[in-house]
Amino acid sequence: MRSPQPHALRNGGDNRSPSHHPRFHSTVAEHKLRRFNSLILVFRLTSFSFSLASSVFMLTNTRGSDSPRWYHYDTFRFVLAANAIVAFYSMFEMGASVWEISRGATLFPEVLQVWFDFGHDQVFAYLLLSTSAAGTSMARTLRGTDTCIANNAFCIQSDIAIALGYAAFLFLGFTSLLTGFRVVCFIINGSRFHL
Amino acid sequence: MRSPQPHALRNGGDNRSPSHHPRFHSTVAEHKLRRFNSLILVFRLTSFSFSLASSVFMLTNTRGSDSPRWYHYDTFRFVLAANAIVAFYSMFEMGASVWEISRGATLFPEVLQVWFDFGHDQVFAYLLLSTSAAGTSMARTLRGTDTCIANNAFCIQSDIAIALGYAAFLFLGFTSLLTGFRVVCFIINGSRFHL
Repeated sequence: MRSPQPHALRNGGDNRSPSHHPRFHSTVAEHKLRRFNSLILVFRLTSFSFSLASSVFMLTNTRGSDSPRWYHYDTFRFVLAANAIVAFYSMFEMGASVWEISRGATLFPEVLQVWFDFGHDQVFAYLLLSTSAAGTSMARTLRGTDTCIANNAFCIQSDIAIALGYAAFLFLGFTSLLTGFRVVCFIINGSRFHL
Repeated sequence: MRSPQPHALRNGGDNRSPSHHPRFHSTVAEHKLRRFNSLILVFRLTSFSFSLASSVFMLTNTRGSDSPRWYHYDTFRFVLAANAIVAFYSMFEMGASVWEISRGATLFPEVLQVWFDFGHDQVFAYLLLSTSAAGTSMARTLRGTDTCIANNAFCIQSDIAIALGYAAFLFLGFTSLLTGFRVVCFIINGSRFHL
């Protein structure tokens, strides 16, 4: 089950041209890989947009001086933190993805890159779903209290921020499926190129 | 990436003896598989115990007639439901695991079994983590209210039930890693036997 080390080392260095690969990869396989990476990039962009929007919605959720704020509620702090983390991570991964598409080589060594992507996608998907669920619970609890009667706009904006978090989770989950597929390809072939 | 159909069909039927396998599997590989399946069984048993304990703790959380009950809080209902679902699922999977260890063949056809296990492990792990997170948020909110001042035991028992849910999630997550490994083995070898 070990990944072949010498092969993995050819990425992450300054080897910028795919034609220097010691192993033969057909143009069709490279074309497919590029399309696959573009799909990942699109999903990451969507996930980034939703999580950024969620952070902004939560952060700007204030209506005058007597209104409650997001930092008065622990759960909303977590929601903001999780969405901000996912937004940063997605931005970084978009950079890595653009690098890979444009240069034909991964940013880190290949073995590290595929596991890094998949592992972080999984962990951040769990993180985002759990904070969104906690946020939903908090928002439902607030619904019945004076807070929401006096400041309905605050509650609605919190709901929107949480819903955007769920959308970001959905696309992060899709990305995690694709990067999981890349890991399997890597284990089978010793390279992230398709079967 | 398609799994080989004729090979997969030899499980799930009445083919009870591994010696009838059309492909050669060494005794070492079978011994390893048995140990691997036993490890999965132990994790499932632990997960089952924790989720059952969590359900029971939540269900029996009542202190006299004026005490609040779990069904007064939506979030606690979800916690109970998720833990009960995971307990049932773990019980079923333990049965399937014991069947596989004792008879040397999977309950369903092999291709279905490995994907069924992995898919459900993933989904239920997400479910359990998100309800536990929501439960934590609810429990924290209750802490500051009159409910917990008047009925501290109710709040403590809810906390314990939620903590047990997290423990169940942890072991379900471990199981999901192992069944994920089985899926990868299946894709590589066309069988759940190790490399």
